[in-house]
Amino acid sequence: MFGRIDHVGVAVEDLDGAVALFSERLGMPVEHRETVQDQGVEVVLLGVGKSHVELLCPLAAETAVGRFLDRNGPGLHHVAYGTNDIQSALDAARAAGLRLIDEDPRTGVRNSRVAFLHPASTSGVLTELVEAAHP
Amino acid sequence: MFGRIDHVGVAVEDLDGAVALFSERLGMPVEHRETVQDQGVEVVLLGVGKSHVELLCPLAAETAVGRFLDRNGPGLHHVAYGTNDIQSALDAARAAGLRLIDEDPRTGVRNSRVAFLHPASTSGVLTELVEAAHP
Repeated sequence: MFGRIDHVGVAVEDLDGAVALFSERLGMPVEHRETVQDQGVEVVLLGVGKSHVELLCPLAAETAVGRFLDRNGPGLHHVAYGTNDIQSALDAARAAGLRLIDEDPRTGVRNSRVAFLHPASTSGVLTELVEAAHP
Repeated sequence: MFGRIDHVGVAVEDLDGAVALFSERLGMPVEHRETVQDQGVEVVLLGVGKSHVELLCPLAAETAVGRFLDRNGPGLHHVAYGTNDIQSALDAARAAGLRLIDEDPRTGVRNSRVAFLHPASTSGVLTELVEAAHP
């Protein structure tokens, strides 16, 4: 169902400060930066092997990540598993009775296809499925 | 400094229920189960590619993971990065001014060597360095 841990998502309040922390002090190279309007976040991907740390900074307080920060402060937000066939993975999650946030895959960063599972049915872990864009 | 995401740690209250969720419904094989007395947890490792999900169930309420669950409920607890030289990675973290929980590496699950960085200096993310045992 899942081939790897694709990334961990980290909610941050100070994006430039977090980029400096992860790139300069933890040694992870910045690979990508993008604003995802429909999720209300600015995103920075840092490389760690073949996986990433995904920094998420809300564009406004009334966004999902903005509300997360208001409740919890900065920290781990979600984990994403990579798959080569997101439709099959999402169908398998549905068949297993897991609660879906996204009934169908949608476009994520770098033109990936993504879908989220609700933490209520995944032991409190907001879980993302991601299929990379085919070059 | 880091070669990969080694695992994500997930705090759980019901270990058998979480094992069933991750193995049967999310399709991750159980690879290892161990009680780590000095951390006060029972641990189950599930495979996802070359990485793992590490389920952490406290042995008592007055343990680090027990207090985490009391504050936050089940969910993402930490992220661990793999390195081939934990001493150098820990020295680099210290030199970068990061706050350390462990001044020296100690023994973790499966005879790995591990050290934790304090979330106060890593954007709220409890961060583990891990060097696998050499076979």
